[in-house]
Amino acid sequence: MKFLSFAIFLFLELFVILPSKNNAISQEEVKSILSYFQNERNNFARTATHDNSLPHDLKCKLDQAIIDEIHSYQGVVNAIIELFTKGEFAGKTYEYLAEMTDTFGPRITGSQALEDAIDWVISTASSEGMTVYTENVTAPFFVRNEESLKMVKPRSANMKLIGLGSTVPTPNEGITADVLVVSSFDELTALADKAVGKIVVYDVPFVTYGKTVEYRSRGAVEAAKVGAVAALLRSVTTFSIDSPHTGTQFYSDNVPKIPAACITIEDSTFMHRLQDRGERITLHLYLGAQNYENGTQTRNTIIEIEGSQNPEEIVVVSGHLDSWDVGVGAMDDGGGCFISWMALRAIQKLNLTPRRTFRAILFSAEEQGMYGGDAYFLAHGTQKENFQLMMESDFGTFKPHGIFFSGTDEATCMMKEIVSLTALLGTTQLSSPADTPDLETFGEVGVPRGSLMNENDHYIWYHHSSGDRIDVYNSTHLDEVAALWTAVSYVAADVTFFLPQ
Amino acid sequence: MKFLSFAIFLFLELFVILPSKNNAISQEEVKSILSYFQNERNNFARTATHDNSLPHDLKCKLDQAIIDEIHSYQGVVNAIIELFTKGEFAGKTYEYLAEMTDTFGPRITGSQALEDAIDWVISTASSEGMTVYTENVTAPFFVRNEESLKMVKPRSANMKLIGLGSTVPTPNEGITADVLVVSSFDELTALADKAVGKIVVYDVPFVTYGKTVEYRSRGAVEAAKVGAVAALLRSVTTFSIDSPHTGTQFYSDNVPKIPAACITIEDSTFMHRLQDRGERITLHLYLGAQNYENGTQTRNTIIEIEGSQNPEEIVVVSGHLDSWDVGVGAMDDGGGCFISWMALRAIQKLNLTPRRTFRAILFSAEEQGMYGGDAYFLAHGTQKENFQLMMESDFGTFKPHGIFFSGTDEATCMMKEIVSLTALLGTTQLSSPADTPDLETFGEVGVPRGSLMNENDHYIWYHHSSGDRIDVYNSTHLDEVAALWTAVSYVAADVTFFLPQ
Repeated sequence: MKFLSFAIFLFLELFVILPSKNNAISQEEVKSILSYFQNERNNFARTATHDNSLPHDLKCKLDQAIIDEIHSYQGVVNAIIELFTKGEFAGKTYEYLAEMTDTFGPRITGSQALEDAIDWVISTASSEGMTVYTENVTAPFFVRNEESLKMVKPRSANMKLIGLGSTVPTPNEGITADVLVVSSFDELTALADKAVGKIVVYDVPFVTYGKTVEYRSRGAVEAAKVGAVAALLRSVTTFSIDSPHTGTQFYSDNVPKIPAACITIEDSTFMHRLQDRGERITLHLYLGAQNYENGTQTRNTIIEIEGSQNPEEIVVVSGHLDSWDVGVGAMDDGGGCFISWMALRAIQKLNLTPRRTFRAILFSAEEQGMYGGDAYFLAHGTQKENFQLMMESDFGTFKPHGIFFSGTDEATCMMKEIVSLTALLGTTQLSSPADTPDLETFGEVGVPRGSLMNENDHYIWYHHSSGDRIDVYNSTHLDEVAALWTAVSYVAADVTFFLPQ
Repeated sequence: MKFLSFAIFLFLELFVILPSKNNAISQEEVKSILSYFQNERNNFARTATHDNSLPHDLKCKLDQAIIDEIHSYQGVVNAIIELFTKGEFAGKTYEYLAEMTDTFGPRITGSQALEDAIDWVISTASSEGMTVYTENVTAPFFVRNEESLKMVKPRSANMKLIGLGSTVPTPNEGITADVLVVSSFDELTALADKAVGKIVVYDVPFVTYGKTVEYRSRGAVEAAKVGAVAALLRSVTTFSIDSPHTGTQFYSDNVPKIPAACITIEDSTFMHRLQDRGERITLHLYLGAQNYENGTQTRNTIIEIEGSQNPEEIVVVSGHLDSWDVGVGAMDDGGGCFISWMALRAIQKLNLTPRRTFRAILFSAEEQGMYGGDAYFLAHGTQKENFQLMMESDFGTFKPHGIFFSGTDEATCMMKEIVSLTALLGTTQLSSPADTPDLETFGEVGVPRGSLMNENDHYIWYHHSSGDRIDVYNSTHLDEVAALWTAVSYVAADVTFFLPQ
């Protein structure tokens, strides 16, 4: 539903207004589309993964020639699987991912670590004989600095917190204020007169990521509207060992910007109980955050194998290399980057020469609001190139089950057939829709997209927390994910037919 | 095995040497026994729970009169269960435990919070018309103060840590030193010459609590023996969200005392990988710990219902009210205390008058080395009182399954019969041995002991970490635990027969 209004807008822009202008979309118009997207995101945040549903019951009637062609790839798919699970690449995805995350640590946009990691990818991929280049991305960035939260009343306690991306700092002396705990925006509205001058604590239980994250995205704005001086949000997770989780949040014009941070489930429920017992709660909050809205320049990193027959047609596998500044982003989204990179390494290793150009894109500045994906759409999303399939993995690379896909029914039938080739891995499931944050805009203009279906039930336990470390992963499962990712994308890059858009 | 030598010692002391001295054990002799115990603990730490085995296959041949008597309690057991699960006490255990932990927070020995919590128990139990009194306990204590761990090389990183109880502080300027990572004491011995001047990191995977905790208990001593300047231990847990866990550790005479702390699984494996890649690792460690070996005075809190017919015979239910200074000790061991206290509340509420004296003991200073239990043994463990049954719950109060028991075969048969009365709760399992840290010494002199069998597979996830909060518990399960605990202990307190010792 969140994109309904956008879809109408897009329809008007692309198919009614734009074609009248010489059938080409100008850069300015693309920027306007992106700007609309950015606002949509700011208002509603990104919807969840985890609630993908089974695809509608397709009655596939593919031409036998297409089915036969797909099945002619069984041998090469088996070779890919063999390479990752028993061959030279076994264990390599984990090993490289561990090395990268160990060496550079967290890679938040604006950090030297992110740029160093990008340089390391360039250098390593080059040394492997791959074609690698970067494209500039400008994105706002955020520096956390010191931050702290202390309970002053009814007893003394140090509380864990993580300031949210783009939060304003507190004054130097911090903010000392009483607390109002609410469970929802509705409750905040009902208690609006009690919120004046307070720190609003949103003790909102997790429902789905998409629904609950709204409180992270616009909690500060809604609290500020009723006169609160700061907003603290129960971390968006289903499980906690006193674990705070960060993420982005957004301000609105004409609403005062108040500091915003996440606290742990435990401290959120604690304060809720105190309030229910009639206790007065006073906190001291300090956030030293600095925001650089004019932005920094970072880079999308692209590793590429040129198409042997149709180089102007492209298949993309991708992830984002930037992370939050807590944890090391092994999961969000080192895994997505490395299976994509490994896909190209494997194709090279097996001396395969796909018909189409095959690209691994390691996006940058995703966590700040998908700036890398937007920059890529700005540069490539018009009619310059034809994208056969774009895949992104950004929701964990745990034990794989198959592929999520968004595309036409006919394309879905083709993808089901392609994914069926991975029977050796047991990863033949196909479901819809795909969830590809950096590629969402491409989806809106009709490009078929894929994402990874994997056993990521506990993804949200580590997401945007200091628990996002390589230890969440299993090396064998990472090999299986890489094999699936490589097999599906390679076949899409090499088949003679174009996925219908 | 760890108590084999002690058992021999005890046999000699109690049955050979001591009886020759007028058949009574003097206070000095009891102190000697306790001192021996303390040394045993220092050397080997406490063995684990979680590896209790099924009881040997007992062929029970109880007198029918005993069986009949036990089953005559079915009605009262059902009433107890009803009270907790559907009656006035439903939800109360969680509510009271939340109130206590919310109000006082962590209750480490030596803290005002612990003494305030004890006063609150006294005041609340008194107001309920219960008999409540305290007995003094002297115990060493530990104040954490500031502490920090930073990686200096090969890259900059802040690492989480928690200093171990009784650790010496670092110098004011901290310790900056290179790291040697080992996986075991054997590896440390093999690499002894490389440990000189280093910070030894024990990256020891969890096997069982009993086995792995040895590295926490004597890691600093073994590292110091080979010339290390500090010891850091991978936290003793099976699962981590970058979660450090504290605990006690012990120094030895004639071995330099070096600082000791726990780090997270993630940082431990991180440094291990760096070392495996040949990287030089340098850390800066600061611990501001203060130890007060002369101790502080704290109190065991005893709530009591005097026996109506045999007041000199005692049934004990217990837990320990002190906790670590991280988390709030809702699990370790607020739950054990509150189900014990609730047992007496329930008996009072139901106007039951047990034949024997029925005591809830909320031990103090357990985490420092079971000082509360030792003090109780010192005061009560000679022939002053007859203990029918002593139960302690100190390994979680999650969904209950039954009772662990340590005693003679005949007593075990009687307990199986008693536990069978809780069929309404589905908690009729009985297994051996019991695990009752504060009552271990009583066990060695033959007192039958019980502990709680519960679904505590994840206990170790929160144990001694800041995740030990009320949120780990489920209110309904706590009611079931309290009902089981009350039923079993009340029947033992009221039956005409004495459990054979």
